[in-house]
Formats: sequence, C-alpha cells, structure tokens
Amino acid sequence: MSTTIKPTETGTAFLTATAAESADKIFSLEQRDEEQRWIQESAATFIEREVLPKLEAIEHQEPGVMPGLVKQAGEQGLLSIEVPEQYGGSELGLLTAALVGSVLREASFSVAYGGHTTIGTLPIVYYGTEEQKQKYLPKLASGEWISAYALTEPGAGSDAMHISTRAELSPDGKHYILNGTKQWISNAGFADIMVAFARIGDNKPSAFIVEANWPGVSTGTEERKMGIKGSSTRQVYFENAHVPVENLLGEIHKGYKIAFNILNIGRLKLGAGAAGGARTALGYAAAYTTERKAFGKFLHEFGMIQKKLARMAAETYAAESEVFRTAANIARAQSTAGHDTTTIFKAVEDYAIEASIAKVHGSEVLAYVVDEGVQIFGGYGFMQEYPIEKSYRDARIQRIFEGTNEINRLVASGTLFRRVLSGKLDLMAKYPEIEARVKAGQGVDRAGEEVPADLRTAVNAVERAKDATLYSAMRVAMKYMQGIENEQEFIDYLANLLIELYASDSALARAIQAVRRGDENSAVHVRLAQLATWLSFSRIRTNLEQMIMSYTDEGKVEKELARVRTYVGDYLLNGVSLQRELAAIVVEKQGYPL
Amino acid sequence: MSTTIKPTETGTAFLTATAAESADKIFSLEQRDEEQRWIQESAATFIEREVLPKLEAIEHQEPGVMPGLVKQAGEQGLLSIEVPEQYGGSELGLLTAALVGSVLREASFSVAYGGHTTIGTLPIVYYGTEEQKQKYLPKLASGEWISAYALTEPGAGSDAMHISTRAELSPDGKHYILNGTKQWISNAGFADIMVAFARIGDNKPSAFIVEANWPGVSTGTEERKMGIKGSSTRQVYFENAHVPVENLLGEIHKGYKIAFNILNIGRLKLGAGAAGGARTALGYAAAYTTERKAFGKFLHEFGMIQKKLARMAAETYAAESEVFRTAANIARAQSTAGHDTTTIFKAVEDYAIEASIAKVHGSEVLAYVVDEGVQIFGGYGFMQEYPIEKSYRDARIQRIFEGTNEINRLVASGTLFRRVLSGKLDLMAKYPEIEARVKAGQGVDRAGEEVPADLRTAVNAVERAKDATLYSAMRVAMKYMQGIENEQEFIDYLANLLIELYASDSALARAIQAVRRGDENSAVHVRLAQLATWLSFSRIRTNLEQMIMSYTDEGKVEKELARVRTYVGDYLLNGVSLQRELAAIVVEKQGYPL
Repeated sequence: MSTTIKPTETGTAFLTATAAESADKIFSLEQRDEEQRWIQESAATFIEREVLPKLEAIEHQEPGVMPGLVKQAGEQGLLSIEVPEQYGGSELGLLTAALVGSVLREASFSVAYGGHTTIGTLPIVYYGTEEQKQKYLPKLASGEWISAYALTEPGAGSDAMHISTRAELSPDGKHYILNGTKQWISNAGFADIMVAFARIGDNKPSAFIVEANWPGVSTGTEERKMGIKGSSTRQVYFENAHVPVENLLGEIHKGYKIAFNILNIGRLKLGAGAAGGARTALGYAAAYTTERKAFGKFLHEFGMIQKKLARMAAETYAAESEVFRTAANIARAQSTAGHDTTTIFKAVEDYAIEASIAKVHGSEVLAYVVDEGVQIFGGYGFMQEYPIEKSYRDARIQRIFEGTNEINRLVASGTLFRRVLSGKLDLMAKYPEIEARVKAGQGVDRAGEEVPADLRTAVNAVERAKDATLYSAMRVAMKYMQGIENEQEFIDYLANLLIELYASDSALARAIQAVRRGDENSAVHVRLAQLATWLSFSRIRTNLEQMIMSYTDEGKVEKELARVRTYVGDYLLNGVSLQRELAAIVVEKQGYPL
Repeated sequence: MSTTIKPTETGTAFLTATAAESADKIFSLEQRDEEQRWIQESAATFIEREVLPKLEAIEHQEPGVMPGLVKQAGEQGLLSIEVPEQYGGSELGLLTAALVGSVLREASFSVAYGGHTTIGTLPIVYYGTEEQKQKYLPKLASGEWISAYALTEPGAGSDAMHISTRAELSPDGKHYILNGTKQWISNAGFADIMVAFARIGDNKPSAFIVEANWPGVSTGTEERKMGIKGSSTRQVYFENAHVPVENLLGEIHKGYKIAFNILNIGRLKLGAGAAGGARTALGYAAAYTTERKAFGKFLHEFGMIQKKLARMAAETYAAESEVFRTAANIARAQSTAGHDTTTIFKAVEDYAIEASIAKVHGSEVLAYVVDEGVQIFGGYGFMQEYPIEKSYRDARIQRIFEGTNEINRLVASGTLFRRVLSGKLDLMAKYPEIEARVKAGQGVDRAGEEVPADLRTAVNAVERAKDATLYSAMRVAMKYMQGIENEQEFIDYLANLLIELYASDSALARAIQAVRRGDENSAVHVRLAQLATWLSFSRIRTNLEQMIMSYTDEGKVEKELARVRTYVGDYLLNGVSLQRELAAIVVEKQGYPL
C-alpha cells in the first residue's frame, strides 16, 4: 500500500463532519502518488495499444482474443495489484486497483478484468489456505490462469443466499460432489478456475475453488446480451463435479461471508469503472460538439448543449470524488491490518454504505452521461459506427449487476439503520440537537471562514440537508420502529438522500482540498463542485418533500413540510451561467476538464 | 372522420382553461367509437398473428419479410386510413390513424408503417396534383407500392432547411435532375417511391415524388443501428436522377411547408406510438413481477417495485391522455376543412405546441418505462431472450427522430413566444391578473364544486402551477425581449414546464371526464391522474426554482423564489400509499390497468 497513511475518516463520517473538515482527510484523484500515476498510465496505454484496436474481434467474441488480452494484461503486471508479493503480486492495494479500474475504457474487457482480478482472485487472496494460495495465486497474478466467480443462479439473482447448487461429501470423504447450475458467469467461456458457491445439506453456502477442466464441469452457450457483448457470459453446469475437500475455500458453511465481503469491494470498483466510463463518454460527446454544426453554429454554441456538457462533467466529478474517497478510506484501514482477513473486511464493512453509494451513484451518473451523449450525437448516437452507441448499451448492465441498484439502496439505508440501532453510529444522541436546529429554522454556519468564500454557502447548504435528512428519517424510523423494513419506499427515499449527500459532500471536500492545496485547476474544481451541489440540492428537496408527504401523520404534513423546507433553504446560484462557464472549459479540453 | 364533432378546444387552451372545464371538450381513449375500436382491434390482431411470429426474420431483415408485412397490412386496409375515399382510402382521419399507431407494438414494423403511411403518403394526399394522386395514392393505399421520405442529409439532421441535394431543370425543361445524398431514410431498402427534397438553385427546398427504380436513384447498405434493427435505414443517392417536372410536389421552393406540416403530424403519431409502447413494456414488467420471486416473495410484493409499476402506469396515462386529446383536437379542426390543404394544416399548426409535447413527453415516458422495465427484469432485462431488452433499444431512437426532443422543446416554447408577441395568444392582457394572484400569494379555487372532491386539490394545484409558469416566464421574457432566443436554457425550462402542465392537465381532464361519465374504471382514472399530477408537481417546482435562481436579478432572487413557492404551494398527497394501491391494480391486470 503505497499511499502515505493519513488520518482516516470513519464510515459514515460524511454525515457528521462537514466537507470543510473532511477536505484534509479524504483522498482525491489529484493526490495519486508517482507509482499510482505510472500504473494508471501503463494500464491506459495497454488499453489504447492492445485492446481498442481489437474492438471488432472482442465484440464478436473471436476465440482466444479476450483471454489473450487478459493474459497480456498479466504480463504487464495489471492482474496482480492486490495479490501479495509472496505469491507473485505487487500488493499495491485496493486504491491503486480502483484507480486502474477507472481507466480501462472498454467495458467488455473491464468486465473480464474485474471478473478475474476482483471476484475471481480476491476470495483466494483473503480466504485461501496457504496451499491454495501457493497453488493458484501465482498463476492468477501472471494471467497464466483466468478465473471466474460462480455465485448467481437462474432462480436467485440478487438473493444470493438462496442458491440451490449442492455439494455433497463423497463417501470416502475426499471430495465434495457439486450439482447445480450457475448463471451469467463472466469469463465462463475461457476461465481455468472458478470460485463457486454451493450448499452442503441445508446449510448456508460454502465456497469452493473449482478447476474448469475437471470432469462434471461444463458451460452453456454464450448469452446474447444488450451490451458488453465482448465479455463471455454463460451458464456453468456442475454434474457430479468432484471437488477435492482441500479446495473448500474459507470456513465451511460460511461462503456467504466471502460473497458479501468480496461483493462490497466489487461494488466500489464498479463505481470506479463507471466514473471512468462517464469520463470517456463525455470525451466523445464534447469532441463531437466541436465538429458538428447545426443551423450554422457548432453544437457547443447552443445553451441546451452547454447545459448537458456542464452537467455531465459535474455529475462525473461528484461520482469520481465519492469513489476514490471511499476507496482510499478502505485501503488505509486495510493497510494497518496486515494479512488479517477479519480486520481487512472489517475495514470494508465500515464503508459498506459508501461502497453501495459508489456503485449506485456511479452507475446512475454513467447512465445519465451516456444517455446525454447519445442525445448530443443525435441520429449518429443510434448508429453502431459511433462509439457512444456501444457505451450506451454497455452501461445498462452497471445498474443491475453486483447487486441491483435497488438492492444496494436497501444496503445503504439498512446499514445505517442497523448502526443507529446498535449504537455503533450515535445518531440517537445527536438527534435532540439536530431536531432543535431544524425546529429553530436556522442552520449554523458550519463552513466557517476557512472555507473558500464561493464554496461556503454550498457547504452550509449541504450541512442543512444532512440535518434535515437525519431529522426526517429519524422521525419516520421512530414511528415505524421494527416495521420499517416493510417501508421500502421510505428506505428508497432515504437511500436517495444519502447518495446525494455523499456525492455533494465529496465533491465539495475535494474542491476545498484543491483550493487549499493551491491546485492550478482549483477554479475548475470549485465550479464542478458548485454545480454538482446545486443539482443534488434540487433532488434532495424533492426527495425530502415526497418522503414527508407520504410518511407524516395526517394533519401534520403541512407544518412538517414548512419546517423542513425553511430549514433546508436553498443553495442559491445562477446555475445557467455556471453551466455556461463550465461548458466552455469542457469544450476547450474536449472532454472532462480534469 | 367518424367522431362526432364536439366543441373543440383551441390550441394552448390548456394554459387558460382548467382541467375541469376541458373535461367536457377533450377526447379520451374511452370515447373511441365502434369503428375506431374495430380498426384498432384488427390492427392489433394483425400484429399478433402476422408480425410478432416473424420477429426473428424482421430483426435480421430477411429479404422480403418487412415489405411483405407492409403489403399485407395494406390488404387489411391499415395503410389507407388517411387516404381519401376517391383514391382507394377509408378517409377515417388523423385520430383513427393515431389510435391505430398506438397498438402496433413492434417498433421496427411501426417505423416502416409510419414511414409509409405518414411521411411517405400524406405529402401526396395533401399536396399532390390530381394526376399525382390518381397515379400514386391507390397504390400506396393498397400497399402495392411502398413509400419513403427522403429529407435528412449527412450534414443536416435537425436542420432540415440546409440540405445540399440539388435539382436542376434539364435543358429541355422536361425533368429536374437530382444530385445529392440522403441519410437515414426509413424503408429505403424496399421503397417503390419516395418523397424527396432538393433545392433548385439557392432557393428553399422543393419536394419531388421520385420512383425508386428510375436511373440515378440508388441506396447504400443498411445502417447498423442500436435498435429498430428490423426497419430498413439506408442512404439514398441521387446521381443525375431524372425526375419528370410533373413530379414536383406542391409549390416550387415551398417544400419546407410540406416538410414542416407533415413533421407536425409525424410528431403527434410518434407520441401515440410511444404511449402504446409504454403500455406494452409495462405489460411485460407487470407480468414478470408475478412470476419472479426474490427473498421468498414475488417481486410485486416489494415496495420499491410497486413504486415503479405505479409510476410507469401513471406516466403512461398522462402521455396517452395528452396524445389523444391533441389528435382529436386536430382531427376535429381538420374535419371542417374539407379538402383544403391550407385549412387542414392551419389546424395542425394551431396545435403545434401540443404536438411537440406529445412527441417529447411520449418518448420520454417511454424511455422511463422501458428503463424501469429492464430494471425490474434485473439481469434478464439485459438478455436478448427477453422482449424488454429489445424494447429498451428500440425506444432510444424516439427521443431523436422527427426532430430531437431538444428541437421540439424549442418548437414548443418558441411557438408560445411567437403567439404571445403576435397577440394571437393574449397572455399580455392576462398577465396583470396572473401577477396580482401570484403576488397576493393565494390561488383562486378554480376547480369548484363540480369537480370530484379527490381531484379538486389536484386541479387547483395545476392551475397555480400554470399561473406561476406564465408569471415567471413572462418576467424573464420581458427582461430579455428579443435576446430571448439566446437563452436556450430558459426556453428549455419553459418547455419542461409546458410539458408537465399539459401532461397533468390532460390526465386530470380525462379522469374528471371518466367520473362524470360514470365510467366503471373511474376510480382507476382518478388514482392515475393523482399520481401523474403528484409526480409532475415535483418536477414543476424544481424547474421553476432553477429557472428563477438563474434568471432573476441579483438581490431579488430570494424574494421571487419565496413568492412563487408560496403561490404554487403543494399538491399534498400520500404518494407512497397511492402507489401501493395503483400497483395492486396494475398487478391484478398484469399491465396497464385501462
């Protein structure tokens, strides 16, 4: 782990600290060290030189092409970032891995890469026995073998614990005999091994390392998908597949721990990939606005296009800020854990809310950016000749896999509830003062003088929004108590609010940091954070309003609405002129301006 | 025109009359007459029996399949709805045509059908000489010949007037010699004739009827598209194509009139098709929620899914209401015009704002519905095996073609400005009283006792929103005056507001009508209209707020925001419990509940 260890934020610190306070603690993209920059650069070069020229072959799944690229990536050291040195890895940690994940550009390759390095390799890194690590990790780190992750089944998508694949101990006690069908397994078409989940008896799932060429292991045909067509996605069949008992991975009946923990990392990395994808798509769109004319003007000269470019950039900035803030927090916490898996995953679990937000928000920002990208291209955006068409199709899966965004919203809000109820997060104690502030109808100036003047009102606005969210959510939660889990719509509103709060807080903290550092681009940071906050603020108000209308006792709705609105107030800004300024910068840079 | 002629609304009447007043004037789907129901039914049966079974062949553009289906549709009388009886048509008018357009279900067929019947045939119906009509219309009505519309060019998408295809009179004065390239021409692969646009000298475009097998007319290869893959989309090349002078269509140099007028009809019909597509997609999704289980429960038992189903239904209801309200208004106005083209298109022009809204809102509701549809299907939504995957890809073009939604937003707001400035729409005179109401901070009860109690607050809320929109927009317009066209972002906000107002007003008017009629489903109408209004209301507030922040003089923003917010107020409703009630109905009906 190469990043200098700095004071780390705790999980959900964004709810209690101001962006101004967090600015000195969070990691932002600008703080990459030399090594991180270098490996990002080499990954980007690899994509440029090796992957993009083979786009057609990838898209048509020409045999050997994708596995060949994964192996090549291994030769470049790109598969071993999170593998310990003693097993052939470079052990650079999660943050560096997320940084690399954000520059992969080609979505199908990115899926193959993530399937191998994250969900295919990390279970062995963290839960493998010494023998398993020695046997498999060097081969996975080098790309000699490619891995897959076989959890999902036809009847159980998001509901990963209810799988029906069974593992039965053989009479001689030497093997587990696996039977069942796995579905939508990335890399299935060429994987050498897979981390597979099956239930022994009626117990919770256990994990196994299964080699693909063992008898009884086979795969179906390639799925015909909307996008990421170059990635291999198949069913995997286990028909009396004999897995040696020493290939049980982790504790028996505790595969679910592996699944959940690895999924949390996977989500964060998807967020990183999505933020990178948004950057790429904005690049396509921005360049096009300087090439194409309509009514005698370049597209970028139209206000409606400027609005799009500016918003695409600002939303991407927020997503990027929250993703790397989270990745660094986890990586720092992990870096003090040595090789103790429990401690390592406690660090992940501490940031489960943030990891879910990174996945949900990252994928939704990407969806927004590719959609606007297509719209900017007009009819050309619908034509496969233009890369934005592929970006649009490829992006759609991001809101679905590694836990649908609905599941991840439940995770974000549900984790918050659990922490509050268990006292791990002491919001109960803070509630009276929050309530007092809201009832008094006036926020405190928490931004203070040390915040750049043009971000101060934004910081205070977000602070009021945090107060209002916690105030309103606590009231609903206290009203429903244990029945709250039946109120999914409330959970949904709360998740939306948490997402907007973390996104805008992260954008502001990063911009404040840039100003304090005297970053040469600090003016751009400030504008991006302002616009991101302004956009979030509208959505925050809408979510609060709809939530209050639906969850307040009759007769009290108007009073409660008025109270919360008065307190939340506005983030007053001329959004249109800000958008124009930002669009000009995006156009000048022909893409994302940082 | 079979519908009984009733008192017709004027264009933009929705801005000045209440939904309660409009309820007795508008047409709603429930008022179809027997003939309209019958032809809708026979179109639906045709799709079911002939089109859907050939889906794979269509999707792969197997030669002959699509043109064969279009011809078959002709045999069923589905191509001749708007063709006068004397040329072999049934002359049932625009409303019936829009009703049929909304049940076509398969998007590629729908594009081929619209390419032929609307933009390919109507120019000749309305602008053809007697000879042209006699020569072409019977063949087009029967499907013996298939037509296409060749306007767009590589360098001019939305900017249809700046085409570079040229027509030069031959030395003997017998032909126009066409040279140029057309792009994205639907039906190009099998069309027998096309309505093509070219400029004679430096004049504005003229229109021509070009037969596809004439020397010098050829087509390119099929475009590779994101969706509507079964529709033929090619470039069309004119290389010294000799078009007899008698095939000039309409007045010389006035092809733009044909283009604009036909496009307005095309937009409305796209709205109808989009509303129908949303209905279909909701059907897929609703059915799936009763088949699929997660965590031991059916999908439809989850609040987050109920929210989606209810919102999909409510938004579809609003789109459908506004589309058929508009179609009937135009059709009624046309029915008094006889065969006078100028009067017929004056009727279309009168509802240009509504036609643009129908296109924009219809296509955006469809986009929302197919997107949520994919999300409900989860991973299966990304697989081509499931129809929602195709719906998602097919839908994307709807926001782009026949004028991008950006262009149509400009049309909606721009037309409003022009009417106000020309005095055609007398908002200037109404402004003082609107301003007085807004400044007084209280709306008038315009819904009155005769509105069903559970819609009264909704109607009054929308009335306040209309006032606030006109008040705020007029202030900005007066501030910028002629410079307003440089304020595209303002035009965009205004268009968004007009869309929400027309959508919610139309939904409410239809529901009030249903109650007054004693419709057996009136309770469902009421709930759909309530939810549609509730959702629109949040967006209206957001658009007003952002617009005011960006377009009010510094120092006055807070006061102006407070004033408009106080006046607009809320549409207080427990949206969550309403969503649950509606979702239960959607689930019971396995789709759109009407």
